[in-house]
Amino acid sequence: MLGVRCLLRSVRFCSSAPFPKHKPSAKLSVREALGAQNTSGERIKVQGWIRSVRSQKEVLFLHVNDGSSLESLQIVADSSLDSRELTFGSSVEIQGQLIKSPSKRQNVELKAEKIKVIGNCDAKAFPIKYKERHPLEYLRQYPHFRCRTNVLGSILRIRSEATAAIHSFFKDSGFVHIHTPIITSNDSEGAGELFQLEPSGKLKLPEKNFFSVPAFLTVSGQLHLEVMSGAFTQVFTFGPTFRAENSQSRRHLAEFYMVEAEISFVDSLQDLMQVIEELFKATAMMVLSNCPEDVELCHKFIAPGQKDRLEHMLKNNFLIISYTEAVEILKQASQNFTFTPEWGVDLQTEHEKYLVKHCGNIPVFVINYPLAIKPFYMRDNEDGPQHTVAAVDLLVPGVGELFGGGLREERYHFLEERLARYLDLRRFGSVPHGGFGMGFERYLQCILGVDNIKDVIPFPRFPHSCLL
Amino acid sequence: MLGVRCLLRSVRFCSSAPFPKHKPSAKLSVREALGAQNTSGERIKVQGWIRSVRSQKEVLFLHVNDGSSLESLQIVADSSLDSRELTFGSSVEIQGQLIKSPSKRQNVELKAEKIKVIGNCDAKAFPIKYKERHPLEYLRQYPHFRCRTNVLGSILRIRSEATAAIHSFFKDSGFVHIHTPIITSNDSEGAGELFQLEPSGKLKLPEKNFFSVPAFLTVSGQLHLEVMSGAFTQVFTFGPTFRAENSQSRRHLAEFYMVEAEISFVDSLQDLMQVIEELFKATAMMVLSNCPEDVELCHKFIAPGQKDRLEHMLKNNFLIISYTEAVEILKQASQNFTFTPEWGVDLQTEHEKYLVKHCGNIPVFVINYPLAIKPFYMRDNEDGPQHTVAAVDLLVPGVGELFGGGLREERYHFLEERLARYLDLRRFGSVPHGGFGMGFERYLQCILGVDNIKDVIPFPRFPHSCLL
Repeated sequence: MLGVRCLLRSVRFCSSAPFPKHKPSAKLSVREALGAQNTSGERIKVQGWIRSVRSQKEVLFLHVNDGSSLESLQIVADSSLDSRELTFGSSVEIQGQLIKSPSKRQNVELKAEKIKVIGNCDAKAFPIKYKERHPLEYLRQYPHFRCRTNVLGSILRIRSEATAAIHSFFKDSGFVHIHTPIITSNDSEGAGELFQLEPSGKLKLPEKNFFSVPAFLTVSGQLHLEVMSGAFTQVFTFGPTFRAENSQSRRHLAEFYMVEAEISFVDSLQDLMQVIEELFKATAMMVLSNCPEDVELCHKFIAPGQKDRLEHMLKNNFLIISYTEAVEILKQASQNFTFTPEWGVDLQTEHEKYLVKHCGNIPVFVINYPLAIKPFYMRDNEDGPQHTVAAVDLLVPGVGELFGGGLREERYHFLEERLARYLDLRRFGSVPHGGFGMGFERYLQCILGVDNIKDVIPFPRFPHSCLL
Repeated sequence: MLGVRCLLRSVRFCSSAPFPKHKPSAKLSVREALGAQNTSGERIKVQGWIRSVRSQKEVLFLHVNDGSSLESLQIVADSSLDSRELTFGSSVEIQGQLIKSPSKRQNVELKAEKIKVIGNCDAKAFPIKYKERHPLEYLRQYPHFRCRTNVLGSILRIRSEATAAIHSFFKDSGFVHIHTPIITSNDSEGAGELFQLEPSGKLKLPEKNFFSVPAFLTVSGQLHLEVMSGAFTQVFTFGPTFRAENSQSRRHLAEFYMVEAEISFVDSLQDLMQVIEELFKATAMMVLSNCPEDVELCHKFIAPGQKDRLEHMLKNNFLIISYTEAVEILKQASQNFTFTPEWGVDLQTEHEKYLVKHCGNIPVFVINYPLAIKPFYMRDNEDGPQHTVAAVDLLVPGVGELFGGGLREERYHFLEERLARYLDLRRFGSVPHGGFGMGFERYLQCILGVDNIKDVIPFPRFPHSCLL
């Protein structure tokens, strides 16, 4: 894969500028250097941060990392190139020859001819310490430095890969991507949990709204996606959503990312569940194949056993049970729940966890929930005394609810006396449709086994904390 | 390209469920049907919205569109299948045989055997009228329906393609994608333009902040990207940013999307400009190749002549002039400016437009601005009496400033007495770096020739307007 730097280099070489007498060293990323096929002494230049220093009598060993991969590049230098500035954390530029390594620990190493310190790092003051494995809680205090550890580096590279995988999945399946708005005047989901906004300094004058109406941060792009599915049939969004909930749990953030999709002409939950299962598995497979070392690090150090648990999820078909069946299973459970399971009441986290375990730690779809506990837009199953709607949640090991979705009520007379614009959409060429949302951070927690949601997002926001 | 529906179909066919006696019609998107190679009467099913109806004595012609492409599929039916419900805008499901069309206007058509109306559309009440070309201003009143017109359909499909192209460009160049936060406690860019937020209903009690500090909507992800470029070397973000400016111009929104990148170890503006030019051109090329009909529609009906202007931009190398040269050019201009050009004062939109025209309508980089008019983090050029910084703006035809960026000041002593955390980043392995931001809506305006920014975003937000 050509880095931008290579691109620039080739362009520069092609230019009509006078050619330098000595060919300059090719600038490679650490990933490119590690993957180089030509190790017969090609002259290259590498830039990055020192991860380890080992000074022997005649030889100096450095490991340099630039974040392009988990693995660092080993630098071997004559001890005459050593200096007191070559410390853990300092940034360096190294020129030398890329050669096959005599050691079995790596394929290639860089025989340094020149080492330039670009930025010093005072190891005493630097909060990340050499050779120490810092607890994730400790690292959360340093949102501006924790990305320079192996574990956060791996998690954030995986997050980037998963983001790309999700975009590819939908694009390859013919979905149109929609940027649903962050600011919305729609507060229908329960006003207590919303963030409201006004221009800075005008918070005390809410009678003069900037948008002429009260404005909030979005809790879901569903309504806006429904608008768009009425034109493009298959649409998705992948962006931030917000809750002003005063929760300090390891599963909640004030700002988190959601993948949401809406599909027109869908008239069975089966079709929706198929898309959800495909999305879950295709994304995980792509992450596993594109950054295996990063995933391995997480599975080894953060969540031992998670590798097997993930493989178990990927190779099995997800299960499907109805809400009514789920309640029966819970009632027959030997376990004592804090909340007694009862038909007509929403499932609690303890219930979700039990159900997943009961299903052999395979993700399980729970379908057909009581009408009374789901939002007004869910499609009525018209199924007699129990009265359920075509809603679906996907429960997964370790996390609980990961996806929520369902068929939407497209029939005008079922929706009368509701929100005017929402109704309006059902008047002009209404179609059966359905959709779902997936919490992206919870997805990362699920595949990586990361316990706290604050460790899978670059800059976590939660009550009393908005660092940087 | 396999649609999700095809995927579902194949899975269903593979299942062990009893095989139906009659093979069900394959469900195709309009795009798939139009691109079908096999037109020897294969039985298919298509779903979408009626775009035109032509009832003849013995034959009924319909055009059906599902948003998967600009082009609609022609349906030919016996007039016995006609009904009063088959009106412009209603949603239908049609089964029939896909055959080669006898007409030259399309390759294939669907010989209908069954037409099912799924959702009626009262043409009188529907604000989008049959065969009318509605002005963009009219359509802005109907954010929930305008996506069902050709022009907004095309623009939003192009937006989706451009989004994918930008992600690919950076991924293929080795950049790590970072979700920079939307909510931030950083208000350093000038408090007047920020949105501040608090949980709904608590706006009047700002003394008890949800985050324990005042919180704002981000105006740029730069600071957070700088953090990450210190670990991953090359990073980018692509997300919403906000300005609480009271502007009703055709170039400003309260919520808009920015592509931002930061690159470590970059020590010349040349390298940055190369990435910017590559990003501009690669994205445009990908859009042109993936949705040529959609682009053609824009270039034909919205911005005649734009096709040539875009080709002119793509085939020429972008130009580079210094700020000082730019001011000289402006001073020698025969044109009378509202704002007299003067060294040390920022360029106005009228100046930007003149410069682009002066440069033959090729995008032009303006570099090395006076230190006094650029933010504190720009790298000092230490160039004597004039005193400039290594900042760069890209000016493009029709839009003016599209990109802004520069080298960042990595030298600790230049930055002392500044923001504590920002300084902190320069203490531990500081490296020369640079970055840029591009307004995504302005980019779409630039390549498509769309005059008003409100027409290239699904749900525009601006003072006094937050529809839906």
